[in-house]
Amino acid sequence: MTRKLQLHEDRLFPADPGARAIARRLYALVRDLPILSPHGHTDPQWFSRNAPFGNATELLLAPDHYLYRMLYSQGIALADLGVPSREGPSKADPRAAWRLFAANQHLFRGTPSALWLDYVFAKVFGFDVRLDAQTADRYFDEIGAKLATPEFLPRALFERFNIEVIATTESPIDTLDHHHEIARSGWRGRVITAYRPDAVIDPEHESFRTALDQFSEITGEDTYSWSGYLKAHRKRRAQFAAAGATSTDHGHITAATADLSTAEAERLFSRVTTGNFSAADAELFRAAMLVEMARMSLDDGLVMQIHPGAFRNHNRWVFDHFGRDKGADVPHPTEYVRALKPLLDRYGNDPRLSVILFTLDETTYSRELAPLAGHYPVLKLGPSWWFHDSPEGMLRFREYTTETAGFYNTVGFNDDTRAFLSIPARHDLARRMDCVWLARLVSEHRISEEDAAEVAADLAYRLPKQAYKL
Amino acid sequence: MTRKLQLHEDRLFPADPGARAIARRLYALVRDLPILSPHGHTDPQWFSRNAPFGNATELLLAPDHYLYRMLYSQGIALADLGVPSREGPSKADPRAAWRLFAANQHLFRGTPSALWLDYVFAKVFGFDVRLDAQTADRYFDEIGAKLATPEFLPRALFERFNIEVIATTESPIDTLDHHHEIARSGWRGRVITAYRPDAVIDPEHESFRTALDQFSEITGEDTYSWSGYLKAHRKRRAQFAAAGATSTDHGHITAATADLSTAEAERLFSRVTTGNFSAADAELFRAAMLVEMARMSLDDGLVMQIHPGAFRNHNRWVFDHFGRDKGADVPHPTEYVRALKPLLDRYGNDPRLSVILFTLDETTYSRELAPLAGHYPVLKLGPSWWFHDSPEGMLRFREYTTETAGFYNTVGFNDDTRAFLSIPARHDLARRMDCVWLARLVSEHRISEEDAAEVAADLAYRLPKQAYKL
Amino acid sequence: MTRKLQLHEDRLFPADPGARAIARRLYALVRDLPILSPHGHTDPQWFSRNAPFGNATELLLAPDHYLYRMLYSQGIALADLGVPSREGPSKADPRAAWRLFAANQHLFRGTPSALWLDYVFAKVFGFDVRLDAQTADRYFDEIGAKLATPEFLPRALFERFNIEVIATTESPIDTLDHHHEIARSGWRGRVITAYRPDAVIDPEHESFRTALDQFSEITGEDTYSWSGYLKAHRKRRAQFAAAGATSTDHGHITAATADLSTAEAERLFSRVTTGNFSAADAELFRAAMLVEMARMSLDDGLVMQIHPGAFRNHNRWVFDHFGRDKGADVPHPTEYVRALKPLLDRYGNDPRLSVILFTLDETTYSRELAPLAGHYPVLKLGPSWWFHDSPEGMLRFREYTTETAGFYNTVGFNDDTRAFLSIPARHDLARRMDCVWLARLVSEHRISEEDAAEVAADLAYRLPKQAYKL
Repeated sequence: MTRKLQLHEDRLFPADPGARAIARRLYALVRDLPILSPHGHTDPQWFSRNAPFGNATELLLAPDHYLYRMLYSQGIALADLGVPSREGPSKADPRAAWRLFAANQHLFRGTPSALWLDYVFAKVFGFDVRLDAQTADRYFDEIGAKLATPEFLPRALFERFNIEVIATTESPIDTLDHHHEIARSGWRGRVITAYRPDAVIDPEHESFRTALDQFSEITGEDTYSWSGYLKAHRKRRAQFAAAGATSTDHGHITAATADLSTAEAERLFSRVTTGNFSAADAELFRAAMLVEMARMSLDDGLVMQIHPGAFRNHNRWVFDHFGRDKGADVPHPTEYVRALKPLLDRYGNDPRLSVILFTLDETTYSRELAPLAGHYPVLKLGPSWWFHDSPEGMLRFREYTTETAGFYNTVGFNDDTRAFLSIPARHDLARRMDCVWLARLVSEHRISEEDAAEVAADLAYRLPKQAYKL
Repeated sequence: MTRKLQLHEDRLFPADPGARAIARRLYALVRDLPILSPHGHTDPQWFSRNAPFGNATELLLAPDHYLYRMLYSQGIALADLGVPSREGPSKADPRAAWRLFAANQHLFRGTPSALWLDYVFAKVFGFDVRLDAQTADRYFDEIGAKLATPEFLPRALFERFNIEVIATTESPIDTLDHHHEIARSGWRGRVITAYRPDAVIDPEHESFRTALDQFSEITGEDTYSWSGYLKAHRKRRAQFAAAGATSTDHGHITAATADLSTAEAERLFSRVTTGNFSAADAELFRAAMLVEMARMSLDDGLVMQIHPGAFRNHNRWVFDHFGRDKGADVPHPTEYVRALKPLLDRYGNDPRLSVILFTLDETTYSRELAPLAGHYPVLKLGPSWWFHDSPEGMLRFREYTTETAGFYNTVGFNDDTRAFLSIPARHDLARRMDCVWLARLVSEHRISEEDAAEVAADLAYRLPKQAYKL
Repeated sequence: MTRKLQLHEDRLFPADPGARAIARRLYALVRDLPILSPHGHTDPQWFSRNAPFGNATELLLAPDHYLYRMLYSQGIALADLGVPSREGPSKADPRAAWRLFAANQHLFRGTPSALWLDYVFAKVFGFDVRLDAQTADRYFDEIGAKLATPEFLPRALFERFNIEVIATTESPIDTLDHHHEIARSGWRGRVITAYRPDAVIDPEHESFRTALDQFSEITGEDTYSWSGYLKAHRKRRAQFAAAGATSTDHGHITAATADLSTAEAERLFSRVTTGNFSAADAELFRAAMLVEMARMSLDDGLVMQIHPGAFRNHNRWVFDHFGRDKGADVPHPTEYVRALKPLLDRYGNDPRLSVILFTLDETTYSRELAPLAGHYPVLKLGPSWWFHDSPEGMLRFREYTTETAGFYNTVGFNDDTRAFLSIPARHDLARRMDCVWLARLVSEHRISEEDAAEVAADLAYRLPKQAYKL
């Protein structure tokens, strides 16, 4: 017996009828606003080539580490789920992988993945029965058939999703060809890039030296001299800005910043580029580069995003066999107050700079981030991120930051996803949760409904537009 | 004037009528399931001898550090409460101690102790007035009288409580005589042991050397050679397994693990056993032993429980006068991501291993534990523990872990108690709180009630049975 | 169009009608109890001179770092808000500053500042329209006019606010003249002092040496010898006690304590007073002085308050231009379990001592502070502090501490403010939030309403009176 799939109109809203009615009214005001996606990981090639997506497994399961990490945690082999390994594409039969996924839907109960998937299945694909072992084939077939139609081409979905602008993320050694192609194509969808220089900034990245070589090639600068290296950054930042970028993004393991003299920086750069460096040197170099990036932002106006705190590739076996970004990243304690001081001492009061902070360590919301953002003019708080991009995570973000930083030191929602089809689901969830929080404030007479309505629209649209200079 | 004692049918359920109705329906499905108690500290002698318990003070107050720590915090002397000291049993009159306890019930308002006590008083002893200064003697007398009846013998209570299996915790130098006696007795109650080797693993334990000597005696192995020491562990683990054990338990101060070569381990072992070692050596030895224990689990299948993070015997004066486990243990910050890496690098993907993690540091739920358990196949999360074995503690556990680890990387409830009479109260509370959490998800349309019903039963019965191989 | 200002009778109470009705009933019992303000920063000169307050900006905006830090975080210059700088009073026109503030009220949505301000505007000044750009001048004029009337003189407000006792905070080099003057005046208002010796205890304070000199002058002791320095403290503590003080207060950067021998203390004192000391020396000296202060409390009975965890003057530019206490203090991680051990090893079980602990690091509530306070007889927990003096902060305090420490190891509310007019607003908010928490417990049948009523009154009045020996 199949079970009905239906998205309840009031999903995520509080049980109390009075608070729910308020949430409903607020949500009605923001539900249909265009999507701004200022930080994410979709592939620009989808929009430049506009080729059809493949099958359900290839589109929805194999690239989504939220899904396969959970399945893997219960003993299901990554290889059986269609996840590519270092040896190449998975040899698993996509249909068999999909059945495995379908039969284990109970693992996602209570997780945001379940909410996103239900939305994608119901709203994007029109299913009215739930995915399970019984309906696995029906799902696989129908999704495959729909993906082959013009309505499911990337650009058609982009338009259907009412995306006003989406940012992808590229490395300084990326040619930006896909972005240029989109620009030339005449298609009106706005797909911009973001400058993510980790590969040429982190001396401990396994391909740092190769990346520096490519950085030199693509810029014509001597990226093994400190001044050439900085020039290369400036050049590429300008090219990224020309390709629509309004922001940079930095995914260091800590939030450390350092303000070095040119002489100190040169000596350090020489150590890290000759391979003769300690872990402390590597950390100091990453720290110093955040101040360098801030300095460049004063001139080119790119907004800095700092995403620290992930211990990447924690599972050695998975990293050895499957490579990076395979669901084996784990947050660890992150400190901001001392870490950011050198950057803030230098530029913390400069109106030309804007820095958006993220965290995976929720203890910092009320202890460090809200007090910092509630004081420094250059700082804003990014939304609850990654593991915390979830109903409870979002409520905690508001509960722990609003009283000290207010709403106006936050920047609305980031979907931060490579799962393109889930983008409307994620924005819908974020808008609902902001309305849940606001409805609580209204129902407890902590703000007026009139003010809450303004805040709801600000969070959904105006603040991301302004903070990311879209 | 005495005040009425009554347990409200809807206690702990949310105020909202809709959510409460859901919680009620879910709870009705799990209320009467048998109790699985896979981790605790009851005394096997109770069940082997089946002798009557003593008076109210001796049974309920003097051994319960949750109760006397609170009274002590308000200036009431431990000696007056019947708590034994290093000089022997307390000289306090049990009735006087009970009166002191009765007169200070207000201190427990809002604590789980109050909820457990009310349950014990109402459901186990049948009181219908509240304990206070006025009713102290009536309580003391009635409890004493009931404890002398056959219905209140340990085995009768075990059966009345509907306990399917209970695990006690023994040290490697325990003879397990009580467990053998229970087995021989023909009584059908299932009382199993668990292997808790801290005393022979922690070089900083005050009786480490004595324990090693006894470990040698009981195993016939040379416990002062590394290989003999390991053989002794293997022998005793086998004997524990034969006495029903399905798990080991490790209460180190941190979660540190270390994967040493045999040569390194031998040198370290020689240092810690000759008494010529540093604090760092002691920590490294404990860390290395977790990996050794994991290695043995690959063969004998015992599930590993890791309970780190308690600063034991923090109050020097209380330790000097009253000894260990006197309510003066305090949690401190605990790190898992780096600490567990050596163990996980070695065995984190091995299907033969199962490790259940506990914490006293709630900040690790969403930051470290849920991400680790939501990825590694060997890891599961134990329930909220000790100070957090409480309504709010349980809600926080679910709120902070479910979205990343789901329900199926958790293992149901542990009562972890030496307060035998409170076991039904504790399981009842845990089942109610899981239903509260599920009712919230259902009322907010985040999962269906049908799914929630399945999860409720899984948490109350199926998951502990499976995770602990009962 | 102006918008109506009205304080809803049920503000802050839960949306659920049943829980709200309980909260209402509990609140009715405590609403009109006198205000005890045992820790704060009002200026005793207000009460000794009883001179009229100035204009709205000078009274309400320029001294309130909660307000101008938020405005500054959005790029509004401190100088434009009437905030004095190192060069002297602000040159901003008070009316222009007020207009700037009025036009940016949206920044405070969802913050406690908004709730406090609404209360002050509605209840203290009687406004019935909201403050915004349109009403800015009307507010400025009416407030100015009212402040010039006898009803708005400091003593009249003190009486109208129903303040039973208020403590100010003075340094050991303060003459206490204003307190003496109040005592001589015959006015019945009870304004007491508190001993806050940070300036003569922290070797890293910029005016440490100057303060030591003044400390010598005011006491006639040789404050550059260890024994003279201690004598000076004892003398001034006695004088503070004579001026009503019942407590001391210590705002160190960490909670570190140290129990040194006299010889060690003398050597350390000599280093820190000659300026030839390391950061570790300074930290050790502060730590040692907490044990010295505790020792003195054994004799003079002053209650110790420890307020650690603020990284002061984090913004270098703001500190250089505007000085201390300008909204640029940021909490950072704080540890208590190891930090307090030396003090607790020495005096943790001494009935003559009482220590009230505060934190800016909410992670310590359930992990460290509640377990410590739920065991040690000398320890009590101060209320949620500073950034956490807010509805959510207060709820978290109760949620994270009650189950382990109960209500009776807490001490009621501190307003900790220099914003005199907001004192009734702050106490009202605190009383409401305690009733919200209690109403939740009652509605979930976790305590009886009868018990909750007793607790509500204890938290509002009896516990602060007792804990601070008022």
